[in-house]
Amino acid sequence: MSVLIKGGIVVTQDSERRVLVTDVLIEKNRIKSVGKHKASEAEQVIDAKGKIVMPGMINLHGHVSMATMRGIADDVTFDQFLEKTFAADAKRTNDDLLEGARLGCMESLLTGTTSFLDLYYGEDQVAKAVEEAGIRGFLSWAVLDDDKTTQKGSPIKNAAKFIDKWKGHKLVTPAVGPQGVYVCSEETMHKARELADRKKTFCHYHLSETRGEVYRHLSATGKRPVDWLADIGFLHEGDVAAHVVWVTKQEAAKLVDSKVSVAHCPTSNLKLAVGGTSPVIDIREYGGTVGLGTDGCSSNNSLDMFTEMKICALIHKHSRWDPTVMSAQHVLDMATVEGAKALGMEKKLGSIEEGKLADIVVVDSNRIGMIPTTKKNAVSNLVYSCSGQFVFCTMVDGKIVAYDGQLACGA
Amino acid sequence: MSVLIKGGIVVTQDSERRVLVTDVLIEKNRIKSVGKHKASEAEQVIDAKGKIVMPGMINLHGHVSMATMRGIADDVTFDQFLEKTFAADAKRTNDDLLEGARLGCMESLLTGTTSFLDLYYGEDQVAKAVEEAGIRGFLSWAVLDDDKTTQKGSPIKNAAKFIDKWKGHKLVTPAVGPQGVYVCSEETMHKARELADRKKTFCHYHLSETRGEVYRHLSATGKRPVDWLADIGFLHEGDVAAHVVWVTKQEAAKLVDSKVSVAHCPTSNLKLAVGGTSPVIDIREYGGTVGLGTDGCSSNNSLDMFTEMKICALIHKHSRWDPTVMSAQHVLDMATVEGAKALGMEKKLGSIEEGKLADIVVVDSNRIGMIPTTKKNAVSNLVYSCSGQFVFCTMVDGKIVAYDGQLACGA
Repeated sequence: MSVLIKGGIVVTQDSERRVLVTDVLIEKNRIKSVGKHKASEAEQVIDAKGKIVMPGMINLHGHVSMATMRGIADDVTFDQFLEKTFAADAKRTNDDLLEGARLGCMESLLTGTTSFLDLYYGEDQVAKAVEEAGIRGFLSWAVLDDDKTTQKGSPIKNAAKFIDKWKGHKLVTPAVGPQGVYVCSEETMHKARELADRKKTFCHYHLSETRGEVYRHLSATGKRPVDWLADIGFLHEGDVAAHVVWVTKQEAAKLVDSKVSVAHCPTSNLKLAVGGTSPVIDIREYGGTVGLGTDGCSSNNSLDMFTEMKICALIHKHSRWDPTVMSAQHVLDMATVEGAKALGMEKKLGSIEEGKLADIVVVDSNRIGMIPTTKKNAVSNLVYSCSGQFVFCTMVDGKIVAYDGQLACGA
Repeated sequence: MSVLIKGGIVVTQDSERRVLVTDVLIEKNRIKSVGKHKASEAEQVIDAKGKIVMPGMINLHGHVSMATMRGIADDVTFDQFLEKTFAADAKRTNDDLLEGARLGCMESLLTGTTSFLDLYYGEDQVAKAVEEAGIRGFLSWAVLDDDKTTQKGSPIKNAAKFIDKWKGHKLVTPAVGPQGVYVCSEETMHKARELADRKKTFCHYHLSETRGEVYRHLSATGKRPVDWLADIGFLHEGDVAAHVVWVTKQEAAKLVDSKVSVAHCPTSNLKLAVGGTSPVIDIREYGGTVGLGTDGCSSNNSLDMFTEMKICALIHKHSRWDPTVMSAQHVLDMATVEGAKALGMEKKLGSIEEGKLADIVVVDSNRIGMIPTTKKNAVSNLVYSCSGQFVFCTMVDGKIVAYDGQLACGA
């Protein structure tokens, strides 16, 4: 199957960040060429005139199957939020998880996300939904101390079983998800690392999200979470740490030195009022990799990465009293190329370039809220004016999975 | 003409903030009844099953005809922003203003805004667009010192002429817009007030948006802007002051005592990095009226009030380190009943109650990003999950002006 996306404003996200009015030819699951082509060269042609063609976005942190938990714990204290969320979570059956994951995958595809990194128990249900929807799922099975989990059996064994089942799948990449230092002992962290190493995958974890979490760990161990993880030898190239709000500059530098990437979740941080602003500008200045994530639907309450990009730009400008920081281009990088890099997929995902996997989104910039869109303001409009509802077409792995508001789930 | 909106989740915004699954009957331009009715009782029936029915939103501060200036000045310093915006502005013809105003009115209606308060020169063009689109426009003609304006003729005379022409129009309410203390001398402020008094309308102005503005005024006059306006006897019941970020608690109290309402514009404040967070929580605690505005399209860059509501909730939770402040209900109030009160329209607009003008929005909460929506989480979903693109139907003054993504402009 070949598809020609014709005449769009192509926001390539290549190394020069070129924006071109041109065509994109897809053959099978790869981008064959970026440049002018005749309509007759492809089996299917998508007219993208006046539309923006961009790389599919990568949602670098979330809990997709919580999509059905939208609005269950808003405007309450952090402790009440956890209480309400955990109480609802504990009651969920596998069918509930599958239903939630289906809803979340659909919302993601319809709003321009083609890959997501998940952290949850019951990732086997999420994997089913991923396969059905045709989205790319990087799924980390939640690992925590046996005496702190509601999982049946040992989390580490469940994770191992999940990885064995899905390893090598075209769309599913299984990983290990040590939930956070507040529920993982040193032994559990080591077991998670050992499992990830043995299965040749990575770890994805919550890290220093709230001030309370940091100070409780400091009080219990004498060390702040990142320092502690570094000292026990846990930090590892290829890992993704979510949130990373309450870290010192020294801790930030340690993460960068260890080649641990950061999944920044601004909306969730703001909504839960964790205080402070994640120092992701510093982390990128140190040479670190920072992607963007929505977090779960009970703390956002949306999976729309366009809104996430806007909020990301706004909060950093605000925090630094400087409108020139966190530019639209910078934020779009986080949602595309940086996310790909965090997942070790920089050669395969994150930009529209020859040879890359065909994960592509077409945005209808002819819609009222995006007018006028030109080559010059395309990136700005994607970040500041766009809504996921302006997505016209989503392609994952060369396959059209959403088109004009309709899903091709299960096709 | 009578319309029955049947079976929706009605977020009434009445004094008890009731959310009811019921019908809304509209006769001519008024809400006749909120309660169960037979379909045969109306000439037209809108099936709102599973949809949310809410009051049309009131965008309390903007420059609607700048909609065509989207993305012209992003990620630059505040001074560069003003320079770029003013340079583009100075070149605009009446046709440009009309085109911009048309685009802005369309975007507003499609995203659930039924009334907006504008501040600009060339409001006669905006008034034309308002009339065509069928939206409600509260239009303040920009007034500033004769030697600082690009308007042809004297701004105060232009404003007077505009008011005379449109006073008493069904959809257009003309007002006076002294632009801000940085371009208005004491004499100009008094002339603006005198004009507003004489024409029985109000003043709408920018106030203490940036720290620079405040300190320049302090340096020039020895007084901070609000203190200065109070001392010259300018502050007046019924006025709307936009931004109000850099005010002392004493100044905030003076505004409240003078019954001047505040139009809070969080996205614009964040994007331009004015620093600080507008003390609107304090202002409401003092008994003041605070509505919500998007500001113009070069500093937002969207007129979507749903996104504005979300960002408003987030930034205040963040600033106070407290997720319980600025609840979804509180923010929805700002976008509806509080906005109506600021405009002196609390008996006519802002809620779905018998006898009020029929400015009503139907949101399709069956869309993926709003599932699940129930009576219980409807308000939360409107603020945290909704996009203007989920608006299914917009009614202004009893007339359906947008339906299923299509506009009835000019009908």
